[in-house]
Amino acid sequence: MPHGYNGKILRVNLSTGKVAAEEYPDQFYRQYLGGEGVIGYFLLKEVKPGIDPLSPDNKLIFAAGPLTGVPAGGCGRHSVGAKSPLTGGYGEADSGGYWGAELKFAGFDAVIVEGKAEKPVYVYIHDGKAEIKDARHLWGKKALECQNTIREELGDDLIKVAYIGPAGENLVRFANVMNDLDAAAGRTGLGAVMGSKNLKAIACRGHQRVSLAEPDAVKEIAKWIAQNTPITNKGMHDFGTARVVPALQSGGGLPTLNFQLGSIENADKIDGAYMRDTILVKRRACYACPVQCKREVKVDQPYKVNPMYGGPEYETIAAIGSDCGITDLLAISMGNEMINSYGMDSISCGATIAFAMECFENGIISSKDTGGVDLRFGNKEAMLQIIEQIALRQGFGDVLAEGTARAARKIGKGAEQYAMHIKGQELPMHEPRLKQGLGVGYAISPTGADHCHNIHDTVYTDYGPMLSALNPIGIFEPMAANDLSASKIRLLKYYSEFIHLLNSLVCCYFVMSLSLVGFDRLTQLLRSVTGWDTTFFEMLKVGERSVNMARVFNLREGFTAKDDTMPERFFAPHPSGPLKVALDRQAFENGKKIYYDMMGWPNGVPSTGRLAELGIEWAASMLPSK
Amino acid sequence: MPHGYNGKILRVNLSTGKVAAEEYPDQFYRQYLGGEGVIGYFLLKEVKPGIDPLSPDNKLIFAAGPLTGVPAGGCGRHSVGAKSPLTGGYGEADSGGYWGAELKFAGFDAVIVEGKAEKPVYVYIHDGKAEIKDARHLWGKKALECQNTIREELGDDLIKVAYIGPAGENLVRFANVMNDLDAAAGRTGLGAVMGSKNLKAIACRGHQRVSLAEPDAVKEIAKWIAQNTPITNKGMHDFGTARVVPALQSGGGLPTLNFQLGSIENADKIDGAYMRDTILVKRRACYACPVQCKREVKVDQPYKVNPMYGGPEYETIAAIGSDCGITDLLAISMGNEMINSYGMDSISCGATIAFAMECFENGIISSKDTGGVDLRFGNKEAMLQIIEQIALRQGFGDVLAEGTARAARKIGKGAEQYAMHIKGQELPMHEPRLKQGLGVGYAISPTGADHCHNIHDTVYTDYGPMLSALNPIGIFEPMAANDLSASKIRLLKYYSEFIHLLNSLVCCYFVMSLSLVGFDRLTQLLRSVTGWDTTFFEMLKVGERSVNMARVFNLREGFTAKDDTMPERFFAPHPSGPLKVALDRQAFENGKKIYYDMMGWPNGVPSTGRLAELGIEWAASMLPSK
Repeated sequence: MPHGYNGKILRVNLSTGKVAAEEYPDQFYRQYLGGEGVIGYFLLKEVKPGIDPLSPDNKLIFAAGPLTGVPAGGCGRHSVGAKSPLTGGYGEADSGGYWGAELKFAGFDAVIVEGKAEKPVYVYIHDGKAEIKDARHLWGKKALECQNTIREELGDDLIKVAYIGPAGENLVRFANVMNDLDAAAGRTGLGAVMGSKNLKAIACRGHQRVSLAEPDAVKEIAKWIAQNTPITNKGMHDFGTARVVPALQSGGGLPTLNFQLGSIENADKIDGAYMRDTILVKRRACYACPVQCKREVKVDQPYKVNPMYGGPEYETIAAIGSDCGITDLLAISMGNEMINSYGMDSISCGATIAFAMECFENGIISSKDTGGVDLRFGNKEAMLQIIEQIALRQGFGDVLAEGTARAARKIGKGAEQYAMHIKGQELPMHEPRLKQGLGVGYAISPTGADHCHNIHDTVYTDYGPMLSALNPIGIFEPMAANDLSASKIRLLKYYSEFIHLLNSLVCCYFVMSLSLVGFDRLTQLLRSVTGWDTTFFEMLKVGERSVNMARVFNLREGFTAKDDTMPERFFAPHPSGPLKVALDRQAFENGKKIYYDMMGWPNGVPSTGRLAELGIEWAASMLPSK
Repeated sequence: MPHGYNGKILRVNLSTGKVAAEEYPDQFYRQYLGGEGVIGYFLLKEVKPGIDPLSPDNKLIFAAGPLTGVPAGGCGRHSVGAKSPLTGGYGEADSGGYWGAELKFAGFDAVIVEGKAEKPVYVYIHDGKAEIKDARHLWGKKALECQNTIREELGDDLIKVAYIGPAGENLVRFANVMNDLDAAAGRTGLGAVMGSKNLKAIACRGHQRVSLAEPDAVKEIAKWIAQNTPITNKGMHDFGTARVVPALQSGGGLPTLNFQLGSIENADKIDGAYMRDTILVKRRACYACPVQCKREVKVDQPYKVNPMYGGPEYETIAAIGSDCGITDLLAISMGNEMINSYGMDSISCGATIAFAMECFENGIISSKDTGGVDLRFGNKEAMLQIIEQIALRQGFGDVLAEGTARAARKIGKGAEQYAMHIKGQELPMHEPRLKQGLGVGYAISPTGADHCHNIHDTVYTDYGPMLSALNPIGIFEPMAANDLSASKIRLLKYYSEFIHLLNSLVCCYFVMSLSLVGFDRLTQLLRSVTGWDTTFFEMLKVGERSVNMARVFNLREGFTAKDDTMPERFFAPHPSGPLKVALDRQAFENGKKIYYDMMGWPNGVPSTGRLAELGIEWAASMLPSK
């Protein structure tokens, strides 16, 4: 077994109660690495086409990678995957915190959960062993109580827990799988899959450190990261992810009123600096990370916000804030705690509320439908009220718990025009009229609209460290944010494959930023951890492989190039505000076409040879016949 | 201008007599590097479609690369290119020796020759200047006399000369451009292009050393190469390229009797060991090379062979030897001197003679046609006689000087079945029934059948240094020599792109062998020379870019996937001998299809997006409309 791995994948069958450790050849690890790579492999190989994502036939996979648990900044992440109940396609999300590292310490590289428990259970993994335990007393519990109860009953405060909140139990289609109270495998509704299996949590504890091929070389790189990231990532440290608010606001890229606008009055009351100056009590880090981009906020009045749940990320601030017409950071912080404690994706939750608000404003739904909740833009109390209703599937919340796409179909009356989703997944808080390459990235993403494995055009509009970091892969010239030429699409292809690689390693793209750590050091890190004589060429192929496996998964589920869409709204400019441009339909369609060409996907379908070049020829037989 | 370059490309217009130095942006060098990359660029941009390769409209390009002239083993090479008079498509060949380094020392990175001189001329390039000089007195002269006359009249014995012999003057379609008496840009008939321009030679002399970004780092790598290559390349040093004869003979891969067979009696009389033990007087090296794979042989009886012309390479030994049924090393050495002094490609020349011999044996041509030359297999005197007739286009030689494809059409009577060529270029001395991936490589090569930018399947049939050298790009498992699965085709894609990269750097693939120098050291060398923060990912894209430019060139000239052929002979096994297998037609066709898929070439045509990914979107407009 290669260094960097335990060489053991845990398979837990909740229907039979069987728990087993499986071993795979070294080559398996080198080809798929871990995280998303391993998830793509098992989803394709083991999940039958056409199954109901919320049935026992779905499999829920937790996967660390060779870098997970390595004592270096950025190495505290893991991936979670399943067929998505939100999109009906490939579901995958990544999380920080401490859980992934602890899974490695406990002796496993991944966990495959299959079947369904008769009654609520949780899995306890510790020092190479795993057991299924009763969780009936945990069902209905919010995050903090769930975590603390498990720690107490197992008598170890250092246990790390990945869990679902009530939202996952209630099969909210954008429920997530969280860990460590503020870290989330947020998107594609994986928490509902966990809930459908009656699995409340996976608790980990172990004492095995990650085996390193060249410990001194790893130490050297870790030291470099520790010394440099607090400087280069100073903005992230000081202000957290909400540091981006001012630039987005001034550029017209701050989603507002369900993406009707790109800026909002009082945006300076919801940014990272304002948070720091008002409610921030502490910065938090993931495992081994010197950056500390996570927040801890405390509010006493008018809401009581518990610092244990951290503080709102940018995505949350925009989703339940500006996109709902709300700029009250205290209400947003309250909403953040609720979303975290119920276990939901704050992006999809906020975007679904914003959708409902626009329906409400347009008379498509009324107080009668909402059970009296006055769902107007800017109504923060309504926002908080509906969050709870969604999580508990109470009242109108039961409709919204299905996500915007299904809710819009249920509501009818033209509600679909207000549903800002792609493939059923709600758009994240990045404006595709501002960042147009990201718009194409939204459309072609296998998980539906996603901002993580995507480019953010605005950082490549001029010479500077972000651009010059790409020189080693042949990208040299700045591109306008609304450029959708082949150069931009090439950037999208390369960079998104790079992120899919990071999701297989698994590590953090803030810390492992190209403009900081760079290709060479990342390659060296993987070499030093595993002892492999790998190149960045081979590594980037892992990313490309993941993208192709996810594409095949979706095609097998019936998706076609026609599903690589964009809501109509984005082809018209904001009626007011600083951003004057919209997506051009022809440029957008051409951008997708170029992307397919670059991928070797005629009509959006990977060719057999293309899959074979990536060593996954076996996946070709899974493509639907024409 | 980047380190490693002079930043000057010389343009010589022989029609107008104008000589000018041109400058290109740094980005141009980084994208195309040099050698073949630069040649592909200029051929596409400047050579109009449909021109006669032997007209003044053709352009003949000599290109060094960033590594040419760097004081390290393997760095003494340059490329030559033009539209090929042999294939009618992309023409390119590479040469060792000293000329490329001297071009760099003389202040230029490349020379573009256009138009046609009224009377024979040569170009003298020295220390940043260039002049066109009268060459009427050189016309008709063989190599040695040509070189020496130029050195004498310019008064400098260290002048390096690239030249054509009488064959090039006589527009023999497989005439080559030689330098240093034993080094040849051998294939695709570039000597005929030079002859058509009335250009006898380009002489270089300079005192400018290659500028290095990190001289110490370069020195370190050069030292490593100097210390290690004589050990790892010991077989090449001891026996030269003819070291491969025994293994090919025993495996049935030694082309014999125009590829009718794969082995020949007395093969041990034409191998590298026999040469060493009989006629070898000295080993020769290219610029800065510690390997010394080149031979110098001396024969007094029954032929007088001048050591100045070196000694026969494996390709020559098989082409005018075994493939013609001849195993007399003295006759082969004589033929080698003649071919070198007349300036022809020994592969195409020998293969054309073998073709004629099979026609003769089958009564398709007779002594009447050949003017009395008894062109039977094994007749060494006939072989020597016809070499001269071809070079001078005398008698039946005038027919054969057109190459096998044209000669077969002229001869008619079913002669075409004996013409072992692809796209008009004769097969090199590697048996595609033995090395089947190489067979697919022959078919898809832009220059017609070629063994250099190709794989040699037999070295990947087991674990060992050749295979493990490919681990860093994700290739791990041995493959049978007749395996044509996707794994083999992936190897073909990656490895041939690697060779096209070496042809752009320009450097030697014996010295820069992956199993020796390896990806990392090669990347480091380019970084240290240029100062670029490049990766192997970016570098391999240069190779892929070259392959795509060449493909576009051919498509523009009317080639289609239908021209990616293989002579019928290779689909049936040898009637006797050790090799029992033949190419399987379906596996072969499928191999090509997979290659197209992997390249992103639907129906063999690069997609616009694929070209755009390589930064050559401009080439898409050159593709014929469907």
